[in-house]
Amino acid sequence: MHKIAIDAMGGDFGPEPIIEGLISALKSNNNFTAIAVGKKDVLLSLIPQNFLSRIEILDTDDVISMSDSATDALKRKESTIYKAMELVRDGKAGAVVSAGHSGASMSLATLRIGRIKGVSRPAIATLMPTSENQNTLVLDVGANVDSDAKNLFEFAVMGQVYAEDVLQLEDPIIGLLSNGEEESKGNEVTKEAYGLISKVPNFAGNVEGSDIFKGTVDVVVCDGFVGNILLKTAEGVADTIGKIIKKSLKRSLISIAGAVLMRKVFKNLKVRVDYAEYGGAPLLGVKAPVIIAHGKSNPKAIHNAILQAISAASSNLNEDIEERLAKYSK
Amino acid sequence: MHKIAIDAMGGDFGPEPIIEGLISALKSNNNFTAIAVGKKDVLLSLIPQNFLSRIEILDTDDVISMSDSATDALKRKESTIYKAMELVRDGKAGAVVSAGHSGASMSLATLRIGRIKGVSRPAIATLMPTSENQNTLVLDVGANVDSDAKNLFEFAVMGQVYAEDVLQLEDPIIGLLSNGEEESKGNEVTKEAYGLISKVPNFAGNVEGSDIFKGTVDVVVCDGFVGNILLKTAEGVADTIGKIIKKSLKRSLISIAGAVLMRKVFKNLKVRVDYAEYGGAPLLGVKAPVIIAHGKSNPKAIHNAILQAISAASSNLNEDIEERLAKYSK
Repeated sequence: MHKIAIDAMGGDFGPEPIIEGLISALKSNNNFTAIAVGKKDVLLSLIPQNFLSRIEILDTDDVISMSDSATDALKRKESTIYKAMELVRDGKAGAVVSAGHSGASMSLATLRIGRIKGVSRPAIATLMPTSENQNTLVLDVGANVDSDAKNLFEFAVMGQVYAEDVLQLEDPIIGLLSNGEEESKGNEVTKEAYGLISKVPNFAGNVEGSDIFKGTVDVVVCDGFVGNILLKTAEGVADTIGKIIKKSLKRSLISIAGAVLMRKVFKNLKVRVDYAEYGGAPLLGVKAPVIIAHGKSNPKAIHNAILQAISAASSNLNEDIEERLAKYSK
Repeated sequence: MHKIAIDAMGGDFGPEPIIEGLISALKSNNNFTAIAVGKKDVLLSLIPQNFLSRIEILDTDDVISMSDSATDALKRKESTIYKAMELVRDGKAGAVVSAGHSGASMSLATLRIGRIKGVSRPAIATLMPTSENQNTLVLDVGANVDSDAKNLFEFAVMGQVYAEDVLQLEDPIIGLLSNGEEESKGNEVTKEAYGLISKVPNFAGNVEGSDIFKGTVDVVVCDGFVGNILLKTAEGVADTIGKIIKKSLKRSLISIAGAVLMRKVFKNLKVRVDYAEYGGAPLLGVKAPVIIAHGKSNPKAIHNAILQAISAASSNLNEDIEERLAKYSK
């Protein structure tokens, strides 16, 4: 029986969508219980009686807001994120899900739960949709800026193991994000990283930004600064195409008729690009599964983030990461 | 009367689309003549008699292919790109348009034509569409990797002057691409660059990948490694959304009907995101206008690239860049 710690207050929309997502996850999976960290009376008012047997509440009402700095967050020992991480450190829970301040979640997980042996920096991984019916795991997407070659090597190994153990892919292929496919392409850091990652099986070499969405490889490795820009760029393009289509629609009655018929198609498209389908982004490299959900997570996203945490907790993820890092570092 | 040197053989599709684009540009603008650099008999067979009065041909048949390395290209003195750059260096032409090897065009322009006073590294700038009826100028998109803070400062100034003098924008606003809007965000290089660019008027601070497509600012500054990844990512997302829509269409007859009606909308969308509309990407920081067109340029793209070269040549772009760099470097 897994026990999952949940920051019940950290999301942009308060506790409602988080508790709703938790309830729906509990309904769909009998194999776990939860500790909801947040203001007790508020949470009690949201949790149906018959679920109280599977949800403990850890009462605290300090919430780190998105505008707070991650460093301040480290001192706020009464905050929901801090207490959720403590639960894992103290062995009272096996995994954490937080839709709160991602920088704070990242630093607190690293400092309170601690890093796996051989990992210098944990990384945030996320799934990107492709035109094929598959996804590409991209890391790091924002945990670290100024990553060095060794960091990128560790990201490659962590991503590959996550793809195998949690996403259940067979022999996942790694690509190193660069400004061209040739080995000669790259900046100083990626050129050095290329050599280190070459020791890892199923390394396809350099890939370009477009390869992420073609599904050329299963795991794409990059620095967190680049990964963040890549993520925001992808969101921006998708959003802009949607807006341009909507605007053009308004201009022509005929296309409005068309749009009605196209609704199914767009719905299908939305499902493919909606992060809520994947839940949250795992923080790889810390001693317990930590899932960082989007601040704007809806109940569905929280539901999926919790199931993600459970499958990570049920796998040998961290043992395998530690073993592979040791093996390929030689 | 402007004289434009054109690499007539460098594109992926050979001389046909390039000569066709040149002819259409000559038809639309009486204010220039051209020197087409390429195999004389081939070019003569493509140029209508009545245009020979406005097109000189410089006969050479060495073409640098996309697979050649930029460094090899520097030694190929008989190549179309090399000779086109020489024409400008020798004052026989005022600007260059090339759809050939962009790395080679970049290095040859820098070495043969030379840099403007105060510019340590030229940068490639490109226009990205936004959901509003405007575009965002992004630089550098591939000329330089491992740019330092001073390089980014120079990109900012060059981009702002290009936006004013060539794109005719009033008081264009600059943004520095980062992993968050707060001044505290960024990697070591962008944090240092933030300080330098702060001396330039209309600097909006850090912007994120999504801001490029929102049109939050007019000019977005980034390192060439990041810029290349950003560009390829944007292309990849647009392409993938198109494919997903097409696939979904196949699945439903109703949506096929819808698609027919939606054709107008997609056509409109294509126009908005089609680089051919903008022509090529200017290489900023060299002593004469150099427009690097896409290797897959169609006649329309070449037509627009040539008109772009002419408007740059008609402006005070380089004098203004030199003056502003001196002014804001103090």
